[in-house]
This record gives sequence, C-alpha cells and structure tokens, in this order.
Amino acid sequence: MSSAQSFKQAPHKLLVIPGPIEVADQILYANASPSVSHVSPAFVPIFGDCLRMLRKILYAEKTGQPFMIAGSGTLGWDQTGANLVEPGENVVVLNHGYFGDSFADCLQAYGANVTVLKAPVGGIVGEDDLVATVKEQKPKLVTITHVDTSTGVLSPVARYAELIHKASPDTLIAIDAVCAAGSEEIRFDDWGLDVVITAPQKGLGVPPGLSLVMASKKALDVLNRRKAPVTAYYCSWRRWLPIMEAYEAGQAKYFATPPVQLVTALRVGLKQILEDAPKLEERFQIHKDVSNYVKDELEKMGCGFVPLDRANSANGMTAARYPKGITAADVLGPLAERDIVVAGGLHKDIASEYFRVGHMGVTAVDKSRGDVDKILKNVKEVLDIARAKKA
Amino acid sequence: MSSAQSFKQAPHKLLVIPGPIEVADQILYANASPSVSHVSPAFVPIFGDCLRMLRKILYAEKTGQPFMIAGSGTLGWDQTGANLVEPGENVVVLNHGYFGDSFADCLQAYGANVTVLKAPVGGIVGEDDLVATVKEQKPKLVTITHVDTSTGVLSPVARYAELIHKASPDTLIAIDAVCAAGSEEIRFDDWGLDVVITAPQKGLGVPPGLSLVMASKKALDVLNRRKAPVTAYYCSWRRWLPIMEAYEAGQAKYFATPPVQLVTALRVGLKQILEDAPKLEERFQIHKDVSNYVKDELEKMGCGFVPLDRANSANGMTAARYPKGITAADVLGPLAERDIVVAGGLHKDIASEYFRVGHMGVTAVDKSRGDVDKILKNVKEVLDIARAKKA
Repeated sequence: MSSAQSFKQAPHKLLVIPGPIEVADQILYANASPSVSHVSPAFVPIFGDCLRMLRKILYAEKTGQPFMIAGSGTLGWDQTGANLVEPGENVVVLNHGYFGDSFADCLQAYGANVTVLKAPVGGIVGEDDLVATVKEQKPKLVTITHVDTSTGVLSPVARYAELIHKASPDTLIAIDAVCAAGSEEIRFDDWGLDVVITAPQKGLGVPPGLSLVMASKKALDVLNRRKAPVTAYYCSWRRWLPIMEAYEAGQAKYFATPPVQLVTALRVGLKQILEDAPKLEERFQIHKDVSNYVKDELEKMGCGFVPLDRANSANGMTAARYPKGITAADVLGPLAERDIVVAGGLHKDIASEYFRVGHMGVTAVDKSRGDVDKILKNVKEVLDIARAKKA
Repeated sequence: MSSAQSFKQAPHKLLVIPGPIEVADQILYANASPSVSHVSPAFVPIFGDCLRMLRKILYAEKTGQPFMIAGSGTLGWDQTGANLVEPGENVVVLNHGYFGDSFADCLQAYGANVTVLKAPVGGIVGEDDLVATVKEQKPKLVTITHVDTSTGVLSPVARYAELIHKASPDTLIAIDAVCAAGSEEIRFDDWGLDVVITAPQKGLGVPPGLSLVMASKKALDVLNRRKAPVTAYYCSWRRWLPIMEAYEAGQAKYFATPPVQLVTALRVGLKQILEDAPKLEERFQIHKDVSNYVKDELEKMGCGFVPLDRANSANGMTAARYPKGITAADVLGPLAERDIVVAGGLHKDIASEYFRVGHMGVTAVDKSRGDVDKILKNVKEVLDIARAKKA
C-alpha cells in the first residue's frame, strides 16, 4: 500500500508556467484519496477546514464568506456577474491585459454596462482616471485583475481600493486573484474588498478544478437587496450559501457534489501554507525576493520585461521580453527539451515578443528543490546557444 | 517512487452510495499525476481522448458534440438552460423525484416556462400524459431524469424519446444521466437525444469534478438560431465549442483551465470501460444482473422498494424500503460501523422509510472485489440484529 510519506509523483518536466504550478507529493497523494461520501462525517470537517483556512490566507476573518465550488477560476467571474450585477448597471473594469478583456466579456453576458479602463500594455490604470470614472459613474462594481498573467502586471489593489472607497463608498470591489492568492498579499478585511476570486492551481499549489471565492457581508447584502432575479443556478450564491454555512458548522448539506478528492488535496495544501514554515507573511516576502532575483538575473541575460515598472510586476511570475535577436523558437522548445516548461506570450499585441515564467508556491518557497536556479541556468544556456548560432 | 502498478489506495470504508462510487487504484493514481500544462502537447491528446471516448460510451458518434468542463453534474443543467432555452419558452420536465424538482428550478432560473409532469413517488410519468402535454405545448425542450437517485426510478428514455419525437418533432430532449452513464445503456444517436448530462463519479467510476455533456447537432443549431443572448459565460457553449473542437483536433486552445489531473484520471477510467473486459454491451447486462440479484436478495430480507415496478428500477442502485419495524438507525449507522457506507433516503415525502445502495462501476463489474456479497451479508446481519433486539 502507498502512504502519504512514501508516495512520490512520477518523473516529469518541471512546470513553471504561471499556473498550473508544481504540486507537492503530499497534496497529489491526497488527490488520490479513496472515495468518500460528500455528506459523510469523514468529509464534512475537511470541507469546513478549507473554508476556514481560506479566510485566514486572505485575511478575511471579519467580513469574508468563502465559497468553494467545483469549476475553474473563470467561474468566479460568473459568480460575480450573476449575483452582484443587475442588467443595465454600471461596472468599471480595470484592464491590464487578456484577463481584463475576458472579465469584461463575462460581466457583459450578465447584462452589465461595462466601462473598461485599459492601461497601455505593461502599464497600470492611472489613479486620476480611476477616480474620475468612479466619481462620475458611481458604479455598482469595480473589478481589478490582481495579477494579469498575460502581462505579469501587478495591480496596486490596496491603493485602488482606497481610492474607490473614497470616490464612491457604495461601489463594490472585486479582485481577480487567481494568479495572486498565496503569492501576493491580499488583505480582504483591511482593504475593504467585496469579492476575491481565486483557484487552487497557482499560488496555492494544488491541482485545478475549484472556483474559490471570498465575498464580503456587504456583497451578500447587495445580493439580498437585488431586484432582478439571479438568472443562474449553479452560480447562485443563494443556492450555495446554506451549503457553505452548513459545512463550516460541521453539518452536511447537498446542492451539488463537491470534488471530494480535490477538496481533500486543497486541505493539505492550505494546511501546508498556514502551518508549515515559512509563516504566511514571510511567504509573501519570499515570493518578492525570488521575483527580484529572477528578474535581475533575466535582465543580466538581456531580457526586458512586459510590465513597465518593477513596482507593478507580479511576484509569482515574470513576463520577460526576449533579448534582441532572440525569438520564441529559441527559448520555448529548447527549454521543453531540457524538461522545463515555461509559457509563451498571451497578450495578442505582443504575443511573439515575450515568454512567461512562473515562480510561485513550492518553486519559490521550497529552496531544496532548486527550481529557480535550474530555470535560470537553462534559460541562460538556451540564450547562449541561440546567440552562438546566430553570430 | 510510486507507479501505476504499485499504487494502492488507503484502506477505507466501502463506499456504496449512489455516487460518488469506489474508484479503481489506477484511476486514483492518475488523479495524482504531476502537474502538466493544460495547453501542452502532453495534455492535448488526453483531453481529446476523453471527448472521443465519451462519444463511444454514449453511442453518440454520428450526432454528438461532447463538452467537458470543470464543475459538477449540476452544471450540465445550467448548460442546458443557458444555451437552449430562451426566456418565456415552454419546457416540460418529467419528474421522478428530487432531481426532477431541481432540474425544473434550474430551468426556471434561465427564464423557462416550466410544466412539471410529476409521477407519484416510485412511479413514472404516464405515456398518455406525456404525449398530450407535448402535443399541446410543443415545448422547446423536454427533460428526463434517466435515473432519479432519490427514488431509484429508471425512466424508459428510448420510449419517451420516441413518443416526444412523434408528438413534436422540433422539441429537444435532454437527459439527466448523471447516475446512468456507464451503468445504463444510452443510445444517443439512435434514440435521437439532444443533450445527455453526466458526471464522472457514478457509473463511470472516476472522482467527481467534471460536468460531461453530449449535445446534438440539432441542439447546436437551435443555439445558433436563438434570438436572446446567452446570459452566461462559463456555461456558454459558444465559448466552449471552439475549445472542444481544438482539443479533439489535437490543438490546444484556452478558455478556462481544465482540471488536468482529473481529466487524466477520466481518460484512464473511460479506457478501462472501453478496452478492458467486459465489453460495453456486456457491462450494461452485468449491471442488470447485479441489480436483479441485489433486489431479489433484499426482498428475501423483507425489504420493499421505492420504485413501484422492477422494469422501471435503476440497475446501478437500489432504493430499498426498510422491512416492517426497522428504521434508518438500525441500518445506516450499524453498516457504517462495519465499514460499509450506504445512503439514507432523499425524497422528502418518504426520507425516513428507505435507504439507497449503489452497485455501479467496479462494485458491479469487478467480481473479484466481492463488494456485492459483502454488502448483502452485512445488511442481512444488521437487520437480523435489529429484529432480535426488538423481538
């Protein structure tokens, strides 16, 4: 029989795209747990623990109501649109790349009247622009992509939230933190956020397959007061709230079957983040330190960056522009042949000009793996080989 | 290092509820696969294989377009409502229990004008009633729960479909086959079905976390011709169709991150069904034989059944009424103490009067496990003990 201690995942290429990321053996082993009833006394506390730990990781213990639903990160956008926006209401979307475009598309599907504030590629939306728009529109909701993985741009969420609260106190603030939770600090209560959307497969280091959402009391009050019906079923927080409350209170309640193995794996992953070294605060600092190291080293190799400013660059990934004369074919394939998988460009205006490296979760935090140096050493080698060929 | 051959899941209680069901070791091992990029050459054929195999298992190779999306079975209802029903259109829901109620709720959320044909508990909707309603309403859609796990009632889907086609040729037919695919024969092409909704954790024997849907060309044509916008994003087949087509053609395309480990596990599970003994046709016969055996044996122990008729009883599960004088407390807890997990009643009118046993997937097909006799032996013993106490 295999056990959590003896289980080792199969040999594989090092996955350092901006998610899914490498998953620790113990978490994968939990994903291979035997079947368990979703309403059994064995499973209820596992589900409840995940909700409680999500509150801690997002610093949402005062005002946060977690939702954990089978799906992908994208489903969090639908939850936001379906529950919080009534047809014709104004929403402002801060757009720092591909995921800003898509979040806007999603909200429009739910009838929102969307105004997109689009930053230039690699830049962030200006404070004056944000304040003027919010003051003028008093939107129901402003959405912010915490890290847009298409550009590697990090939004100054705390600062934006402060400005939005001041300009329009009733406006709700939703953060797409799919590529931020676990790798970037998120202070749900202190920053006055209303929705944080995330997923397990990035900074939390767990396989994909869950939509993880934190909603504020204010957001749930807005839902309670809405006039138009919620035109969705699976995404309806009214359907899920009693389920989440029940599991957290130690009771089973059925709406739709949760992915029991993945929830079990998530519990192991969240426990590692909260209970193992390093502490949560240190974890964010480690991601910053690793990020600076990766970016400095790539710069030495001649790379530029998609984000225009280091201060607004993600700490869990790097969107690096190829050095002069180097193309995607010189880097992506050669790295994959060396068993290192990075991602190509995703932003349509510059897709061929850059590549993306993830340095989240165990790759950043578990130094004994040596992932970061392995990545940098191999990037340097494939760049050198490409340059030598072209010389 | 662990391997597919050496991996054995942890000791656990035998899970024989009507899903999730017991999962074979090799499938669980695949669920612990190392992370892989969802757009990598390694993953694309795995995703494509799942789609191709779903077509085979549902006999949908002529007219079926599969969708595989992170979520639960319930999400298939939303896909049906969001894509195929425009606000105010008539839908007829055949209701054989709890899941009929819920499917109707879901469709109403998408604006459907729902007529529920509700069978008496344990019965099925009468053919005359069905034909008269369909002729009168010419509904956009009729929905049928293939097996309603709250009652164990099996719908005569082929017969209903024939009657519906004759009474209203344009009407679409959607089958909730969450608790049927893999354990009950479903002939998508031959029966002229338009939507089959299922999930991995029942007759397919894989962990939960995916919504698996087969849609007909006719259903996709109806979607193309719809006038009202699709008021959903994650559930929109317009968003997902290009993704499914790309993966099946061997190309990666991104809309939302699939649960890569679970898709890998599903591939192993579907391959076992299609390639290992017994053959697919035999598999359905084995489920019938096991079902008859379980029901005959339970009858000998004094149990009755929720379904009024053996012919309309599910083959993958049994909803058994407690013998006279026996209550849930005599059976559910005592069986759990013997490491056998069955389910209590779910239908609100009779919840305390019956229990539910699953006999799907490996529990039915892999005789070497001895699950069925273990279940029956223990049910008999707990009933005998309860009777002795009360005598």
